[in-house]
Amino acid sequence: MNQDEHFLREAIALARDNAAHGGRPFGAVVVKDGSVVAVGVNEIFATGDPTAHAELLAIRAAANALGSPRLDGCSVYASGHPCPMCLAAMHLCGIRDAAYAYSNEDGAPYGLSTAAVYAEMAKPVHDQQLPVRHVPVRDEDGDLYAYWRQIASR
Amino acid sequence: MNQDEHFLREAIALARDNAAHGGRPFGAVVVKDGSVVAVGVNEIFATGDPTAHAELLAIRAAANALGSPRLDGCSVYASGHPCPMCLAAMHLCGIRDAAYAYSNEDGAPYGLSTAAVYAEMAKPVHDQQLPVRHVPVRDEDGDLYAYWRQIASR
Repeated sequence: MNQDEHFLREAIALARDNAAHGGRPFGAVVVKDGSVVAVGVNEIFATGDPTAHAELLAIRAAANALGSPRLDGCSVYASGHPCPMCLAAMHLCGIRDAAYAYSNEDGAPYGLSTAAVYAEMAKPVHDQQLPVRHVPVRDEDGDLYAYWRQIASR
Repeated sequence: MNQDEHFLREAIALARDNAAHGGRPFGAVVVKDGSVVAVGVNEIFATGDPTAHAELLAIRAAANALGSPRLDGCSVYASGHPCPMCLAAMHLCGIRDAAYAYSNEDGAPYGLSTAAVYAEMAKPVHDQQLPVRHVPVRDEDGDLYAYWRQIASR
């Protein structure tokens, strides 16, 4: 069994166990240098937190385990196709690569696909269902980012 | 002062206060029916959690406050341009719309832009810096999603 298959089977086992306990069927494993750093399962059902996807929780747990918000050199193995929230989280913290076993096509008949969110976010901003407006409001205390740099450089 | 300006000023005030305490200069407010449901600030510095963006934490707090992972009808006001992780989170939980005050262009000179992540994720999957491979591994216990439906329908 190669590394992909080994860790994807672990992610699937986590997902299956989560489903057995009433959760959604998603699990994820963060791996560094061939070893598991952290795991996560979908906890939306248990916590009511809409961001509690398996990959996001595994990333948070891995950062905690490694003592750094940077996960450069780590890989994510997910039972299902990572959604754009989780993929963006991977980009933000330096995840090297990812693999998944069940596709959005596999999930669609069960309402377990996030292909629609990918499709929305691929549209031009002004055509998306969720409008994001730029309103260049400023307060009286000067540029926020210049203020931050001033504080950070002390 | 209109509603956009009112709540964006609140988000900026949160960001400024967070910067004053050593955090990154980002704040966010979730609003429903004209009232603040929850707020968040960037807590990466305080917690080491790379997913602790202001908008994501505000969404988690709003779901907790409203007792539901669905935030339909809510709006997000963010001091800075929401990154793709936070935008996808908004899509996933039904946020109606969003507004932000400081753009990625404003943030770029300070290293506070996420435009590069948007640009990466807009590329075809096989051209992205972070490769995401589909490896259709299965275990011996049958289709994971069919198993989940069977459990969920009990």
